[in-house]
Amino acid sequence: MDRDDAKRRAAASAVEAVEDGTVVGLGSGSTAAHAVRELGERVDAGLDVRGVPTSFQSREIAREAGIPLADLDEASVDIAIDGADQVADGDLVKGGGGAHAREKIVDAAADRLLIVIDPTKEADVLDHPIPVEVLPDARTTVAESVRELGGEPELRWAENKSGPVVTDNGNLLLDCDFGAVEDPAGLAADIAGLPGVVEHGLFVGVADEVHRGDEDGVTVRRL
Amino acid sequence: MDRDDAKRRAAASAVEAVEDGTVVGLGSGSTAAHAVRELGERVDAGLDVRGVPTSFQSREIAREAGIPLADLDEASVDIAIDGADQVADGDLVKGGGGAHAREKIVDAAADRLLIVIDPTKEADVLDHPIPVEVLPDARTTVAESVRELGGEPELRWAENKSGPVVTDNGNLLLDCDFGAVEDPAGLAADIAGLPGVVEHGLFVGVADEVHRGDEDGVTVRRL
Repeated sequence: MDRDDAKRRAAASAVEAVEDGTVVGLGSGSTAAHAVRELGERVDAGLDVRGVPTSFQSREIAREAGIPLADLDEASVDIAIDGADQVADGDLVKGGGGAHAREKIVDAAADRLLIVIDPTKEADVLDHPIPVEVLPDARTTVAESVRELGGEPELRWAENKSGPVVTDNGNLLLDCDFGAVEDPAGLAADIAGLPGVVEHGLFVGVADEVHRGDEDGVTVRRL
Repeated sequence: MDRDDAKRRAAASAVEAVEDGTVVGLGSGSTAAHAVRELGERVDAGLDVRGVPTSFQSREIAREAGIPLADLDEASVDIAIDGADQVADGDLVKGGGGAHAREKIVDAAADRLLIVIDPTKEADVLDHPIPVEVLPDARTTVAESVRELGGEPELRWAENKSGPVVTDNGNLLLDCDFGAVEDPAGLAADIAGLPGVVEHGLFVGVADEVHRGDEDGVTVRRL
């Protein structure tokens, strides 16, 4: 299977749901980027939408694609289309691109969130390391607390700069391996309560549909 | 009653608990500032401690007071001394100075947290507006969610600059009036779970002692 073709099919399927006159949350990552470009082609063809980007990256792609942009304080998001690093039972792990804080702000604000993936992103149980954005001051204390919660934190290291990755918000990232997460909602609440955590990559109960591109079609699951 | 004298008495009482060779979390605000200066006098007299500041302000006062400083990633905090905007039943509202994110990181990391107040800070039930630090992108969406939780959010406006207060972390503040908070732990979890919230000013179950300076003495409550 060509994974990129599968991603394109998932993206096109989700973009079908975008109606004239709506505000669209524009996700980050390679599959969501296909959706943003597809949406740009429809705007070219006359579709009237405004886009709210979920990241610096998605804003750049949307500008290139010619989608008019809006901010969250001037527009309320009708539908968001975003990718995920892993999906299990409708819950997500996101944040491989370090943009999960703004992604969660936009995705959670949307009336409907459509997740677009290829089959490699699906799992029975979430076991992908969970990206946790932390205030720089708190990297050591949060790492200790993550260990107490049963996780193994690793500071995300940068390439093309010395030292750690710094997020678009000026913070650091701990990739936290909890193994199989049997209770995503409970773990999400535990991590959110740690002092110095800005946002974590568990998206629990936020998605409304999952569009999975397959070898020769798309499987849509409504949640 | 002279409130400033009461604050001094509370601060001196808490500083009594600081032992030689320990790492001390240095709180923010006017009462904690008395404690930092008092601690500085003891350092002058030979006490061997290192201080971990909870804010830009507390770091400046500690430097002036001659207290050797340490970071959270090189020292673990034995005892923290901090003020509060309101105390009820051992739970706190903090963040009048907008420094509650780092205050909570340091205070929660301390083996023991001693809160220093004058009597005007005590209440039967917490009803002080709760400062919520938010990523700038999320100010509108968090404000909406706060209203759904029954609170009335107000963006904190700056003096000496145009526009809103920007925190030491580069974020914005919503002062959220929930009236009387009957379930601080529940509200703390609800606010912490909102996408884009960096840190809120409810400190639930974090304090170990409250030192209240009175007209002619100090009342210490162990929690």
